Parts: sequence; C-alpha cells; structure tokens
Amino acid sequence: MSDFSSSCELSASSPSASAGSRVLRFQPEFRWQGVPVNDYKQPAEHWQKVTRMLLVGGRDEATGFHVRYFEIAPGGFTSLEQHVHEHAVVVLRGRGQVQLGDAVHDLSFGDTVYVAPREPHQFRNPSPEPFGFLCIVDAERDQPTPVV
Amino acid sequence: MSDFSSSCELSASSPSASAGSRVLRFQPEFRWQGVPVNDYKQPAEHWQKVTRMLLVGGRDEATGFHVRYFEIAPGGFTSLEQHVHEHAVVVLRGRGQVQLGDAVHDLSFGDTVYVAPREPHQFRNPSPEPFGFLCIVDAERDQPTPVV
Repeated sequence: MSDFSSSCELSASSPSASAGSRVLRFQPEFRWQGVPVNDYKQPAEHWQKVTRMLLVGGRDEATGFHVRYFEIAPGGFTSLEQHVHEHAVVVLRGRGQVQLGDAVHDLSFGDTVYVAPREPHQFRNPSPEPFGFLCIVDAERDQPTPVV
Repeated sequence: MSDFSSSCELSASSPSASAGSRVLRFQPEFRWQGVPVNDYKQPAEHWQKVTRMLLVGGRDEATGFHVRYFEIAPGGFTSLEQHVHEHAVVVLRGRGQVQLGDAVHDLSFGDTVYVAPREPHQFRNPSPEPFGFLCIVDAERDQPTPVV
C-alpha cells in the first residue's frame, strides 16, 4: 500500500480503513501522488523514451485488468509488437501516432484506440511535446512478440 | 461493428481488415465518433442527470474489462451503492466529488479513484459544468446494491 496515498478532504480515514478505496491525486506534469515512474521495458533498441506508471491493478486490487499511464517523450516510440491480449488506449496528453497493421493514425486528447488480438502496433511521438495515454489490459496476458 | 468507425489517415483498410482494431475519434463535448450516449440506468429517483458511453468492451472485443465514459450534468449524481466488483475511475472533464464510505473527495482532471469491493460509493456533480470520467470494470461483475 505504500505506493498509494489517500487524499481525504472530509475524513481522516486511511485507505485501509475504507476497505482499500483510494484517490490517486493528479499532479503537475502528469504524475500521480505516490505512483512511481518506471521504464516501459528493460532497455533495448526497439523502444525509446517511454515511461509507464501503474495506476490501478496488480497490487492489492482484485481487478481482472490493469490501468497504466504511458508517456512517450518527443522522438520516442514503443516496440512494434503483437500479442493475443487486447489494448484499450485513451489519450490524455499531447499528440502522437499509433500504427495498427499498415495504417497510421494521428492521435490527440480523448481519442480511443482498441488494439485487436495479434494486431501489429506501435505508438510514436513525432511531436515536440510529451504524448501520454492510458492503456488498459487484462491482468493475465501473453508476452508481446516483436514484429520484424 | 456499426457503432464503431475507424479513422485511417494513411490507409483505406477497414476495421475488419485490420482484425478489428479501431480508433474512436474524440469529438466536441466529450463524445466519441459512432458511440451512442445512453442513460446511466433505468430511470429512478436514486440517480439524476447521468449518461454513459461504452468505449471498449462488450461487443466484438474479448477483453475481460469494459471501458465506459460517464458524464454527470450539473446537480446530478449516481446511485449511492455498493457491489463486490471494483471500479477504476479517471477524471477527464470538469470537477466533481466521490463519496467513498464516509469520506468525500473533490475530484478534477486526472484524479484516479479505486473503489474497493463492497465500498459504498457515489459520484456527484455540485459544479456548474459537466463532470466526466472514465470508469473501468470487469466485464463479468455482480449487480449493485443500493445503500439506504
């Protein structure tokens, strides 16, 4: 629980006192109170300048899904990969692109992407500002395979 | 598939041609291209002025989760209820409040709420502008029980 902090304006109850419910406060520069900023993956040449933050799932939650926030710095990109598990992506910050198969789509705030099973895909940021999005996946999922 | 439209800038491929992947374009006033605006629930006195849009899940997707966008008009509120399934909420629009147990938290853009199993909860909009948020839930989930 140490990675999550509750912000109670009108109550002194702790997260544990309220059965684990909590509010993760949004902070400047798209950070969340108590949520660490991690590398997207182990360092490799097939991705650049991507961070991720785990907002909900995979700790004491029982959700069958994980909610992550990914951010791609200018010039960065995720791996071009495919897998059986699906992605649901909602753009929160800046502008970028997604490649789905052979198609490339420009993305900005609110645009929502569904990546189907085995679809080769890659997110990129050709813009001069950070490009950030929520990405929701099933908690139990297969490993990505690089597309070469 | 008729409720979802793909927007391909650089390809003429249809959603089905790209194995079901798609981009739901964000539109003015927090609407998404091809996504219908539905009532939150059947009309009842325990909620007011709430709409919902299903962005991902529950159609041809195999995701174990659903991504919905809820919007509460000024003065509106969701049911005060509890259930075993958990909520992951990320605020996209305006300002509002969530009640978690006995605590009330003010919410605005980016704030992220985890509602734990059986936690009595209610979302409210005391502001003069629409209050909108993503709410992600497991696809298979129990029915809510009103808190009286």
